Order: sequence, then structure tokens, then C-alpha cells
Amino acid sequence: MAKKAAARARTASTRSATRIETDSMGPIEVPADKLWGAQTQRSLQNFRIGGQRMPVGVIRAFGTLKQAAALANMKLGKLDKKLGKAIAEASAEVAAGALDDHFPLVVWQTGSGTQTNMNVNEVIANRANEMLGGKRGDKKPIHPNDQVNYGQSSNDSFPTAMHIAAVDQIAEEVIPALDHLASALEKKAKEFQKIIKIGRTHLQDATPVTLGQEFSAFAAQVRLGIERVQATAPRLLSVPQGGTAVGTGLNAAKGFDKAFAKELAKLTDQPYRTADNKFEGMAAHDAFVEISGAYNVIACSLMKIANDIRLLGSGPRSGLAEINLPENEPGSSIMPGKVNPTQAEAMTMVCAQIMGNHVAVTVAGSNGHLELNVFKPVIIHNVLQSGQLIADAAMSFTDNCVAGITPNLPKIKQSLEQSLMLVTALNTHIGYDNAAKVAKKAHKEGTSLKEAALALGLLTAEQFDKWVRPQDMLGPK
Amino acid sequence: MAKKAAARARTASTRSATRIETDSMGPIEVPADKLWGAQTQRSLQNFRIGGQRMPVGVIRAFGTLKQAAALANMKLGKLDKKLGKAIAEASAEVAAGALDDHFPLVVWQTGSGTQTNMNVNEVIANRANEMLGGKRGDKKPIHPNDQVNYGQSSNDSFPTAMHIAAVDQIAEEVIPALDHLASALEKKAKEFQKIIKIGRTHLQDATPVTLGQEFSAFAAQVRLGIERVQATAPRLLSVPQGGTAVGTGLNAAKGFDKAFAKELAKLTDQPYRTADNKFEGMAAHDAFVEISGAYNVIACSLMKIANDIRLLGSGPRSGLAEINLPENEPGSSIMPGKVNPTQAEAMTMVCAQIMGNHVAVTVAGSNGHLELNVFKPVIIHNVLQSGQLIADAAMSFTDNCVAGITPNLPKIKQSLEQSLMLVTALNTHIGYDNAAKVAKKAHKEGTSLKEAALALGLLTAEQFDKWVRPQDMLGPK
Amino acid sequence: MAKKAAARARTASTRSATRIETDSMGPIEVPADKLWGAQTQRSLQNFRIGGQRMPVGVIRAFGTLKQAAALANMKLGKLDKKLGKAIAEASAEVAAGALDDHFPLVVWQTGSGTQTNMNVNEVIANRANEMLGGKRGDKKPIHPNDQVNYGQSSNDSFPTAMHIAAVDQIAEEVIPALDHLASALEKKAKEFQKIIKIGRTHLQDATPVTLGQEFSAFAAQVRLGIERVQATAPRLLSVPQGGTAVGTGLNAAKGFDKAFAKELAKLTDQPYRTADNKFEGMAAHDAFVEISGAYNVIACSLMKIANDIRLLGSGPRSGLAEINLPENEPGSSIMPGKVNPTQAEAMTMVCAQIMGNHVAVTVAGSNGHLELNVFKPVIIHNVLQSGQLIADAAMSFTDNCVAGITPNLPKIKQSLEQSLMLVTALNTHIGYDNAAKVAKKAHKEGTSLKEAALALGLLTAEQFDKWVRPQDMLGPK
Amino acid sequence: MAKKAAARARTASTRSATRIETDSMGPIEVPADKLWGAQTQRSLQNFRIGGQRMPVGVIRAFGTLKQAAALANMKLGKLDKKLGKAIAEASAEVAAGALDDHFPLVVWQTGSGTQTNMNVNEVIANRANEMLGGKRGDKKPIHPNDQVNYGQSSNDSFPTAMHIAAVDQIAEEVIPALDHLASALEKKAKEFQKIIKIGRTHLQDATPVTLGQEFSAFAAQVRLGIERVQATAPRLLSVPQGGTAVGTGLNAAKGFDKAFAKELAKLTDQPYRTADNKFEGMAAHDAFVEISGAYNVIACSLMKIANDIRLLGSGPRSGLAEINLPENEPGSSIMPGKVNPTQAEAMTMVCAQIMGNHVAVTVAGSNGHLELNVFKPVIIHNVLQSGQLIADAAMSFTDNCVAGITPNLPKIKQSLEQSLMLVTALNTHIGYDNAAKVAKKAHKEGTSLKEAALALGLLTAEQFDKWVRPQDMLGPK
Repeated sequence: MAKKAAARARTASTRSATRIETDSMGPIEVPADKLWGAQTQRSLQNFRIGGQRMPVGVIRAFGTLKQAAALANMKLGKLDKKLGKAIAEASAEVAAGALDDHFPLVVWQTGSGTQTNMNVNEVIANRANEMLGGKRGDKKPIHPNDQVNYGQSSNDSFPTAMHIAAVDQIAEEVIPALDHLASALEKKAKEFQKIIKIGRTHLQDATPVTLGQEFSAFAAQVRLGIERVQATAPRLLSVPQGGTAVGTGLNAAKGFDKAFAKELAKLTDQPYRTADNKFEGMAAHDAFVEISGAYNVIACSLMKIANDIRLLGSGPRSGLAEINLPENEPGSSIMPGKVNPTQAEAMTMVCAQIMGNHVAVTVAGSNGHLELNVFKPVIIHNVLQSGQLIADAAMSFTDNCVAGITPNLPKIKQSLEQSLMLVTALNTHIGYDNAAKVAKKAHKEGTSLKEAALALGLLTAEQFDKWVRPQDMLGPK
Repeated sequence: MAKKAAARARTASTRSATRIETDSMGPIEVPADKLWGAQTQRSLQNFRIGGQRMPVGVIRAFGTLKQAAALANMKLGKLDKKLGKAIAEASAEVAAGALDDHFPLVVWQTGSGTQTNMNVNEVIANRANEMLGGKRGDKKPIHPNDQVNYGQSSNDSFPTAMHIAAVDQIAEEVIPALDHLASALEKKAKEFQKIIKIGRTHLQDATPVTLGQEFSAFAAQVRLGIERVQATAPRLLSVPQGGTAVGTGLNAAKGFDKAFAKELAKLTDQPYRTADNKFEGMAAHDAFVEISGAYNVIACSLMKIANDIRLLGSGPRSGLAEINLPENEPGSSIMPGKVNPTQAEAMTMVCAQIMGNHVAVTVAGSNGHLELNVFKPVIIHNVLQSGQLIADAAMSFTDNCVAGITPNLPKIKQSLEQSLMLVTALNTHIGYDNAAKVAKKAHKEGTSLKEAALALGLLTAEQFDKWVRPQDMLGPK
Repeated sequence: MAKKAAARARTASTRSATRIETDSMGPIEVPADKLWGAQTQRSLQNFRIGGQRMPVGVIRAFGTLKQAAALANMKLGKLDKKLGKAIAEASAEVAAGALDDHFPLVVWQTGSGTQTNMNVNEVIANRANEMLGGKRGDKKPIHPNDQVNYGQSSNDSFPTAMHIAAVDQIAEEVIPALDHLASALEKKAKEFQKIIKIGRTHLQDATPVTLGQEFSAFAAQVRLGIERVQATAPRLLSVPQGGTAVGTGLNAAKGFDKAFAKELAKLTDQPYRTADNKFEGMAAHDAFVEISGAYNVIACSLMKIANDIRLLGSGPRSGLAEINLPENEPGSSIMPGKVNPTQAEAMTMVCAQIMGNHVAVTVAGSNGHLELNVFKPVIIHNVLQSGQLIADAAMSFTDNCVAGITPNLPKIKQSLEQSLMLVTALNTHIGYDNAAKVAKKAHKEGTSLKEAALALGLLTAEQFDKWVRPQDMLGPK
Repeated sequence: MAKKAAARARTASTRSATRIETDSMGPIEVPADKLWGAQTQRSLQNFRIGGQRMPVGVIRAFGTLKQAAALANMKLGKLDKKLGKAIAEASAEVAAGALDDHFPLVVWQTGSGTQTNMNVNEVIANRANEMLGGKRGDKKPIHPNDQVNYGQSSNDSFPTAMHIAAVDQIAEEVIPALDHLASALEKKAKEFQKIIKIGRTHLQDATPVTLGQEFSAFAAQVRLGIERVQATAPRLLSVPQGGTAVGTGLNAAKGFDKAFAKELAKLTDQPYRTADNKFEGMAAHDAFVEISGAYNVIACSLMKIANDIRLLGSGPRSGLAEINLPENEPGSSIMPGKVNPTQAEAMTMVCAQIMGNHVAVTVAGSNGHLELNVFKPVIIHNVLQSGQLIADAAMSFTDNCVAGITPNLPKIKQSLEQSLMLVTALNTHIGYDNAAKVAKKAHKEGTSLKEAALALGLLTAEQFDKWVRPQDMLGPK
């Protein structure tokens, strides 16, 4: 405690010049060089929790949202053109990331995200007023609530910003990164399509596959992951903006919801539409539990793929050692020359995190009350973190690991040839029970299958050579 | 321990007449009146873990699967017609549930479900041999592996049975039950559409909504839940049968995979198709993590709905008390006359279970190795349990709670009239800051909004009466 | 739906002779041969959800509880001796499991477990009345509420039964089974203490360990697991009985709480004490989230151990193959002679389930409202299931796997000798950077370390032989 | 993607002056003003994943660790005094946070944390060499591996740093913050001890409690939470340092483990001891799953407390409204004058996050392989984040909410007086069944209990007044 108190005191002492801003609770000092207002400042002081900032993706999405709202309200004749244009311009700056430094609030604030919505309203109002020759803090001619927030509530705006941020991330980062990974895996699948190797089930030797077939399964998982993300689109593209405080749309202009969705679609080039039931879109965030669930499936897929790749690359001398992984860095501070599957490790850690994040989203998503779910910030924090981790880890894993994988052909050949499970090819010739006798005898006596089969008198050497051919065991006959 | 040992001894001592069955490990005693064989018996003895049986849904799905496989193999000329017909008939009995008592194995067995696949093969072989005049245990003319399992492996069959069981449950139970609940909620939404009441955000008084609007949000959540389940169909209807041991299809007849899918589609009236990549369908079960994720979203929805309904029904005198819940049973063993929201409680407990099951499925789904995920039984156990709990709880909640809900009109009226949040209607007339002053004054002094507004001189009584009308606050203007 | 309706109709049609029982809601038909009464019957009819019965452990714990309560109330002069003695005797029958068939209710009922408490009260009243010459359903001379439930509420009784059931299971099953496993692992650790083998970190070859050291780590995990369970005892042994409806103890006799705890401690031979704060013990069940958390740690431990054992046993020819696992059953329906690590698979599936159950308990534990948590049945269902799965799986895994593990000495020797990580022994002689050069050269050229070291001229052959000795690399010097 | 590529290009272009550092993979450019070396730089470039830095708590713990190691090695005569002293001094700077800027690595790196251990070794070596007149990058006279890391491996050091960081946070932040909250709740419990109010079970009206009793339950939960954290101490205070690469202690001096633990205990004033089994302490991190589990219980407790407080504070006019919460900020961007339970919202969001983090830790903790768990960074990231969130949220919730809670006496009185559950006091006078009739009649007819009781002729007015007294219903008689 002492530690933290000291740290806070330090922070306080470095405070610079301030100006006065006011809200319905009265005046409050705000850093002079910042565009935020009174409500932002109160939140800063009242919520000294953790260090996790409201994701920048939400802030920029809010920029787009406020721009679309201003445009819609102008079209509907509800917002003075001059003021509206300034608001739209200031909003565009927020959307472009130019004002990122003016959004200091953390995730752990009010559960409706009202404080971030007000942070956005305050910054845009101050910026737009400056554009129009006004002064920070004056709320003139543009008031954060009466103009910037016109026809809106945090209760419909914050979730709408959540939708915009998640959809943008999916389109710009998640799907491209997964596609990049899938393509790399498909390339390897093709490259390795003729390399016959031992298959393994239950981690035990099994009938042959090609290394390309193994990689094709990885690629299929990633491709299906993309499908899973895309399958959530109808719910993510449906936004509750226009519901205002409780879903009814009180104080919004008639037609605002549809006009807004149209402007939003234009600005983002995504087919947004207004939610059929805005009460649902504010009181619950099932659409985010759903996309988090899709990320959770992808985490399972990537965990499997990364685990398999490190297992196939285990060795160099006493593991499966069927593939070589790129050597990117020294692996050990004590064991010289050691190289480790570090990209697979980063990936599997990311997967564990995403599974955890999904539970956080689930708990948060299940806990709404009546007209409002008040776990909005924690939901979007986790959804965007999971999206980013998938995208970044997929890129890193592709470029620093998958792309550089090569087969270890001598080891692959050796493992294949000594396998007892080639016996399976005999099932259709001598029956399962006899084939089992051959495998068991060879295992017990450490001999080859052929030696065991001949010793049991179940077939001739010629038959064995004709029937037991790995290259014939890669598909149905 | 002593307890359990005694219990096991008891079980042992009640064992009845037996016959001998054999497998590749040798002979073993099996209860004479049961159709299972040696491998089933070994599993029974080696896995005395928990009491959770392999779900009957899986067993019956296996019946359908073995029937479809026999039909396909006959068509492909790989199975003698007489034998094949007997196998198909015995399989149909399994599918119809007539042989449920012959499947004693638990979930906690081999992770490939091989023992259950063999249980099915053994029961069908014995039953079919009896049909053909043979004797239990003789494996003649039909051998569990060589005929019943022809062209199959546990590794492709067990997951295919998982798909069949899950799809059947969705079609027969989950979606109808959710539809039943959604319809009941929609009916209430319509019935309550003119009942204006106070809205609540952050659990605090907010602007008005109708009781019908609240129920419409519940209904929308359930309808979207149905969409979410349906969105998983493409992956659930794709089956890996034909991949045999490792995905290559070794020992299956050429074309078996497609022929099987066709027979399966005919038998079930579902558009099954063979998986594009069978390696993926055996090495990973992402499709089940996905459907479990859809159930997890539904659990969030139902948790919210049940929580809200018990909150709205809280009282009878000192809660929100806006709705009356049906009184189904005495509520307390000590407090006479108490009636509790027991259906909501059962529902929310079910939701907690489903969220937990989802994590079990996630962990299991992420843990495959190379050609095989060996968490198959625990995955399908949880997926089917979640499906059943959703279906049963939705039915019970609908019939024993939702259908009987009535509004408590006097309480609704009282809460609405005393609300301070009607002040929101004044924003567009006197501005947000002035409106805030009115609300704060009324709250502090315990007066009505109108009294406070007039005292502050911000408007006239006529203006107040004209502007602040709950019935005008239910939508945009 | 059609399916289920038919199934229910079938169930209904097989109903046998009935008698009339009554409660505060009126009369209701009950099966004549069952001891339960009206409230049990209502629950049966109103909660047709899932198939999971209230765990028998809870029922028997309730027997002990009602016996202790009757004894305490008699001592306090609040219960007629004759009636009290009959109640105590009937309760003892419940505790002994003699009346298990009379408790048909499912987990998914009222969240306070009131219906199961009433089921217990009704069965004991009917049974005790019969002992006293009365008739089922007459509630005379003993009334389920007024005598059997005297001074009690479901709200303090159900959680007390939860504590009793969990503590009993820990003492009788969980700890003995974990001790059994730890002992077997310790025995192997000793047996294998001189077998030097290659160590592996990051799944890559590392410096040597003994096989005994590896097993000692497994044993240490299990021993620490026992400590973790034991560390929860202070909270589990503290029971809220005596708090009655809301924690105040209204209608209980003064001193009943302490008298009850004393009787309970005597009956169970466990140091129970009355909770310091009974409000906490009814409104929250943190003690169960805590024990579930201990089981969750154990699940992590057992997952690691079972995974490692299957990895070390992978092969037989193309895996690590350093240990041989017992062959308990045929492993594959298609690959003859295959043997799989099935006990490890059952164990890891159990672990996945326990992790899921823990989340269900967490969600349920976090969701109480004011004076009562109403997720009691789902909490105890999961806690007892996890406890049973740990105990059963630990026994099965020990007896059917660990006890029969043998080392594969030739493979162990081969892997050790070819290891490049023996180079680590050179760090203190030639420095990390030079040692790295040796390892990298040997790896690249496929030579031995010695060859590489000599070629680089960094040391002499004699030095190499003296410095690089696996048997000297098993501890500090 | 385009977005990200541009961002990366931007980052690259702003790179400043560099120097050359080398490791076993060759030379690499490093920013001239940073103390880190080649291996840190490689990690920076190879792991562009997420933005989550390795927690500063781990970095500072590493400072303490390296200091203790240097002191122990000097005492054991393994490290030159002059060099050792410089290492210890540079390490102390790291421990004090003076070099925080030199640790740029993210959580998503190698799973052993080797790169962070090397970052620490490199920074300390460079800093110590500078102290001794040397130059950055020269590795003379102090080499990061050969001296700073002497007798250590990342595999024992990183987990030891995890233990140090977690223990420090518990002692300095978590327990003091929980104690602060518990004290505030206890103060309220005392302050409110005579305020009699309606109790609620199942969210339905129940028998009376005092407001103080309700707060006493909250306080008890928090106090037990502290006990739970403390119960994990034996496992957290046991450190694997001295196990080096695989647990054997190869290359560490004999006695180093105990000497290290002694120095560490001195530096931190915590009773650390060397782990009995170092293999366990590196191959598994069950101790962290355990402490995460304790945090998970606390999250359940805090979720319950915050939920109850917002429920009791719901209103102001149409909720339970039994307590007043401090008004810290405007609550709504659209509803003027609205005040929301924002601190409770931040707290419950924190709780959801901790539950999710716990699953991430569980998945990570279950996934080790043989001699090493390689999910170390993600484990400690989540454990420290959960600890910080608990500490910060507890402080904020206490100071900004709990401390300012006041009772709303008129509402409390009104709810109590109209309660039907006061009827419970009649059980022992007229029996449960009769009492139930009274309550049901009053409820149905909207009358008082007394009116209903008299109308039923079950007692006299005098008896009613004597028997039904809320102040007599707060404990056993």
C-alpha cells in the first residue's frame, strides 16, 4: 500500500497547468493541454483501477459513430449544418487516431461505458468548438450532450461502438491474419504431399499418412475458423443505435436509427443495419459472447496446430524429429546450442489467454439487468484483446515458424519402415484376429512384421510385399 | 475407500450366469443375458470411474451409423447381402433404443470411444448372428470387426456418431424447445404491449418502456439463439466417416464415404455430406466446441431472462413486484405462505452448468494430438448434456412459469408515476443541464418533478403536462 | 419434441397405485410404495429437467443432519423424546443409504434445495410415523415441518448437508485415492532412481535426469494436492445450521447451533463447528468454490502426469518409448495389435470435466442475492462429481496403469547417449559461447559432441570424457 | 493488415542510434541508449504480438533474485567478489524499478520466459560492466550467462521470479486492500446494527434481519478471502531456484539452493525456503493455479457483495432503495440527474475478468510437458493482473462507495412493516400449516397479516401483537 500511495503522490506532483471544466456536479480542474472535460476527469479520479485503457479500437469506432450520427442528424434536419459539420470533422479526427492521447480512461469504469461516451463527447465538443473559434471548456456553440450526443445515449452508443470496433478488427486484422496462416499451411501441405510418414493415434504408431495430409488438416481447421467468424456477421452487423436510453428511442429523431446505419455503412464499407430489436441490443450482448465463442474455437484449433508442430519438431535427437523448425534465437540461458519451438509456445499461451477471456466475456454477458447490461467495457476489452492476439500470433507464427518448416526425411523414413501398424493392410487378407497375432509377435520379439508373419505361416513373402506397401495405404482402394 | 470396496464386492457377488467371449487378448466371462462381447467386458472392468454412462444419444446414433454403413457397403458390393441385411436390421434395433440395456460403458474410457464402438459392433454381431440362427459369442457368420466394422475404424465412426447424435438432438429437442419458449415470450410481449412501466438501467430508475417491450427483448434473445444454433449446421452436417484409422480411408472401399453420407441422409432426413478433409474431422472436434459455444450464448441469454423475470417478480410487498409468477409449490420449509421463483432458479442453475460444460468441451477440444483427438467421449457427453438441459429447462420454464405470468398493474402504475427519469423528456426543451437541476432538486426534496420544475421557474405547468407524458416517451418523435 | 412427449406418456402410463398426501397447496397423488410426500411429488412434476439426481451423498448427509438435529433438540428439551427418538432412527436409516430409493428429485429444482429438504422431512416423518404405528401421509404424530424440520430451514439445512457430504467424500474417497496414487508414484520413483535418461524441456532434448526424478515430480504434485485439499478444511468444517431462514436463527432454540455441531461432530468423527457468521454461510458458498478450486489444481496436476506418462510411453517404435504401459485391452477396431494409453485418456478426460465443473461452481457461487444463494444444488452436484471423478480415476489410473509401468532400458540408453545437451557440462570449463559452438556443429553435421568438440580444438579427448558424464549431471557439484 | 504494416513501418523509421550486440546466433543492432543485449533484441523482433508487457512485478522480482543469487554465489566462493558486488548493485537497481525502461519484452514470447531472463542478465551485465568501467555490449568483465546467470537457468529462475512477484504483491497490495475493505464493511456492520429491515431469500420477502447483519456477512466473506490467500503461502514460499535446467541442479554449486533461499528471505523479509522437489517446481506451476483459485473465490465474494449493494441501492424511487450510495459523477449522457452504482459496476467487471483469468491460468497450468511447463509468462501475467485488480478495485470500492453508504430509513421501515413473512413467528404458536393460511389470505386480499389472522380466528389481537415483533425475530429464543 505504501508503495502505491507513494506512486500516486508522484503522479499527482507532476501535474501540469489546468483549466476549469464543469458538469452537472460542478466545476473540476482538467489538464490544460487535454481536450477532455469534467466527466472524463471525474472518472479518472474515481477509478484508479488496473492499467488497462479502454481499447483504442473503441475510441476510434466512437469517432466513426459520432461522425455518422452527426451526418444523419443533419440530414434529418435536427442538427445545425455548421455545427454538424464541425462535429463530423472533429469526429473524423478521432476515428483516424489523431486524438488518441485525449482518451485516458480505463476499462474499469461505469459498466455502461458512459464515461467513455462522455469522454468522446467532451473531446469532440472542445475540438469542434476550437475549429469554430471557441474555447475549451466553454461548451459553446457545441455542447457535449446537447449537440455531440444529440439523439443518442451511452446505452445505445457504447454498444454500437463495440460492434463497429469488433467488425473492423475482424475485417482488417483477424481474417487477413488467419488467411495468411491458412495459405502458408496449404502451401506446406502441397509441398509435403508426397512425403509418406507414420501416422499416430493416441500418440501411438498408426497407419501411414503423408506429411502433406497432416498439414492439410491444420489448414482445414484455420479455414473453418474463418467460416466460423464469418457466420457471426449477421448479429455483429446489427446495431442498436437509435434506442437511446432504454431501447425506445426517446429523444432520437424518427428515422434516425436507419439513417445512422446508412451513414455508418457508407463510412465503413460494411453492410450495417439497424437492430430489429434495440432493447435486446442494449440489455444483452450475446453477439459478443458469440464472436468470443468463435475466437474460442479458433484458440482450440491453434492450440492443436501449435502443439502438433512442436511435437513433430521435438528432438533434435530424441524426439519425433520429423520436421525442422526455424531457429530464431538461442533457446536456453544454460544449455548451449539449444533451440526451442518458441513461436509455438507464444501461440499456445495466446490460446490459453483467449479461452480465459472467453469465460470473462461469458460471465459478463450473462449478468445484465433489465434494460441494460453493465459489463460493456469488460466485454469489448476481452473481445478486442482476443481478436488482436489471434491476428498477431497468427502472423508471427506463420512468418517465424510455419513458413520455414522443412521435413527431416531420414527420420521420417526410419519411423515409417519400422512401424508395426502397417499390419492393418493385412486385415482384408487374413482377418483382424490373425493380423493382430502378427503385430503382437513382432512387437514382443522385436522383429519386423514380415518376419513375424512368415513365422506364423499366415502368408508368403511375396504376398507380404504385395499387400504391405505404405504408398498403397494412403486412401481407400 | 473401505466403503467403495465393499460396494464393489457387493456388485461382484450379485453377478449372474456367464458365457465366454474372446478378443485378441484372450477369453473373458460375460453376463449370459447380455449381447456385448469381450472388449466391452474388459472396459467395464478396467474403467470403474464415475457413474456417467455413454449418452444413449450416442448409442442410438451408432445404430443409425452402422445401418447406413451396412447399406453402403452392400451397394458397393463389399458386404454379403444376407449378412449385410442382418447387420442393418440389428443396427436399426439399436437406433430405435430397443437394445439400450446392452451398452453399459461409461464416458471415462478410452478417449477415442473405441470401446463403445466395439460394444456396438459386438452387440450388433451377436444380435445379427442370432437372427441368422447363430450363437452369442461365436462371431459367426458375422464378426464384429470384419463385418460390422467393415471399412470403418472407431476413429472415424465415433466422431460420426457424435455428429449424428448432436444434430438429432438439435432438430428434435433443442430448437423445438427454444421455439416453444420464444413463442410464449412473444405472446406475452403482445399481451403486455400497452402496459407502460418504468425502465431501469444500472438497476436504477430510467425512462419508460412497456412491459411488452421488455418481453420482446427476451423473445429476440431466444430467436437469435435459434439462429446461432442453426449457423453451426454446415460444420455439424459434415462427417468424417470413411477416413478409417487416420483419415486416409485405408481399408474402406473407394466411394464408401460418399455412399455412406447418402444413406445417412436418407435415414435421418438431414443433409449430411462427407467431410472435405477427414483428417480434420478426426484429429479435432472444433465443430463441437462451436456448437457448445452456441449453447453457451444461449445460456447467457436464458440466465439474463430468468434473472430479469425473478427480479420483476420480486416481492410480494418489498420487491419490484411488477409481475406475478405462477405459484407452483410451497416455497419454504420454515416461512409459511412463501412462494419462490423456482423455475427461474432451475433455469439459472442449468445455465451455470452449461457454461461449465462449455469449458470442459473447450479444454477437451484443444487437446488433440496429431491424427486423433482422444477426448471424444467427454466432448459429446457435455454437448449432449447441455443440449438436453437447454431443451428440458426451456420447456419447463415456459410451461411452469412464462405462460402463467401476469402483470401487477397497481404496482406498475405507482412506480411509473413517481419516477424522476421522466425528466429526460425535457432535454430537448430546456437542455440537459437544466433538466438535471430539476431531477436533483426533486430527489433531494422528495417532491415531484413538476413541483421542482415549477419552483426552478424553468417552465410552466402547462408545458410540463404537455412535455412529460410517459405514453409519448416510448419511441422517437 | 414428439419423441419426448411420447416418452413422457409412456412413463405416465406405467404409474402404479397411489395415496393422497397434502401440503399448503392442497392434496396430491403420490406412489403408494414411496415414503415421500406432497412437496416431493410437486417437484417431480414441475421439474422434468435432465436426468441428474440430487447426489446420493447429499441425501445421506441429510440423514446424518436430521439425526444430529433431533438429538440436539431433544437435549435442549424442544422435542418430545419418543418422537425425537423415532426421528433419529429414521434419519439414521437415511444416512445408511437404506432409503435411497425414496429420493427421486433432480438437481434442477429450486435453488435453495428446499424440495430436497422437504423430501427428507417427508420421508423421515412417514418412516418415523410408521415406526410409531402411524400411517403414511397422516403427518401424525410427527409432522415433516413442525417436528422433523424443527428449528431448521432449508436455507441453513441444505448448505449444512452440502458441507457434510463434501467433507465425508474428501475423507473417505478423495484423500485415500490420492494417497494411493502418490504412494504408487513414489514406489516407481524409488524403483527407477538409478535409471539415467535424457531430460526434456520445451519438448526438446535437455540435460539428463533419472526416470525416478521424473516420477518424484509426479508424486510431489499429488502430495501437494492432498495438502491443498486439507488447507480448505477450516472453511468446510464450519456449518451454518442454526441460522434458519435468513441467518438470524429465528425459531431455533437458543444454543441449538452449538449443540447441533457437537452432535454432528460425534456422529461423523469430524471436528465440525458452528459458523461464526451464519449469514455468510447461507448467502454465499465460497467454501465450495474454494474446494472446487483445490480440485481444479489437482486436475491440472493429473492432466500433466497422465500426459507425460502417455508421452513417455508413446511408440512402440516411433515415439519416445521410454516406458512400457500395461496392455489392458485391444486398442483399435481396425489396427490389429495396437495398444493405447487408455487409462491416461480416461484420466485426462476426467480432468477436463473437473475444470469445466469448476467454472459451473464459480458462476453459481458468484450469483447469490442478499440473504440466500440459490444455486446450491448445482454447486454441490459439481463438487461431489469432481470429488468422485478424482477418486475413481486416481484409483483406476494407479491400479491399471502406474503400478504396471516398466522402463524400456534399451531406448532410454540410446536416447541418452546421442543427446547434444550433455554439452551443458562444458559451460563451466569452456564457457557458454564455446559450448554452444560445439553443440551447433554436432547438430549441423550429425556427429557426436565429442567429435565436434575435438574438431573445434576446444578441449582434449581426455577432458571430454572426464567432463561429460551423464551420471555426474544429476545434481549440483 | 495494411493498417498494421504501416504502423510497423512507422515504428521502424523512428529507430534511433544503435550499437552491435552479439549472442550465439551472431551480431544484431540494439538501440544505443538501452541496456539490453542481443537476445532481448531478437525477441523484440520475433514476437510482435499484443501489447502486454512482461509485468513490471516480474522484472523487479528478477532484480531481487539476481541480487540474492550473486550474494549466495559469493558466499559459496563461486563468484569473484568484485564482479559479484557489481552484479548485486545493478540487480538492486532493477529491483528498485530504476531500470524499468530497459525491459521491453511482451508476455507472448518463449514459454519458459528465457528471453526475459536473458533480458535481465543482459541489462545487469551491461549496467554492472559500466559500473566497473566497461562498455555496453562487451560482456566484459561480466558476461550475462557466465556470471550474472551463474548456477542458474531460466527454467528455475523464471518460476522463482514468479513466486517472488506474487508473494510481494500479496503482502504489499492484495491483503492490505482486502483488509481495508473488510474494515470498512465491519464499520458499517456496527453502525447499522440496530437497523431492522426485511430479509430476502430467493429475492422474495423473508423474515427480518438488521442492515448490520447484512454487512457483517459481506465483511465475513472478505475476511475469509484473506484466510484463503494466506492458506496458499506454504506452496508460494517454496522456490525451485537451484534446480537449473531440468531440476537436477547441474552447474549450480552444492548448497546454492539453500543459500539462495536464505539471501532471498533476508532481502524480502519473507520466509522463503528451497523447494523439496525442484522438478515439480519447474515442470508444473500448480502453486499459481492455487493462488489464482483463491483470487477466483474472492472474485465470487466481491461479485456477490457489489451486486447486493447495487440491489439495495436500486431506485431512487422504484427499487429496493434501502441504502443510499455516494453520488460520484453524473450517471447518464441522456437522463439528467441520474446517479448510478458505478463503483459496483467496476467491481463486478473486475470479478468477471478474474474468473476469466483463472481459466487462462488453469489451461496454462495443465499443459506442461515433462521437465518444463512452458506457459510461465501467461500464468504470471494473469495471476499478477488478478491480484492488482482485486487490490485496486477493493480500494476504489471502499473509498468511493462503501465508506459513504447511508441507510434510507423511511423506505426500510415501510418495507419491514408491510412484510408478510413476519408470519414465520407464528409457526411455533399455531403451526406451519395455519401460519401459511394467514400469509396466503393476506397476500390474496392485500390486507395485513394481523387482519388475516384475526379473520381466520386463529389467535387474538393481543397474541398477534405479542408474538409478531420484528425486534424479537433477529435470533433464536
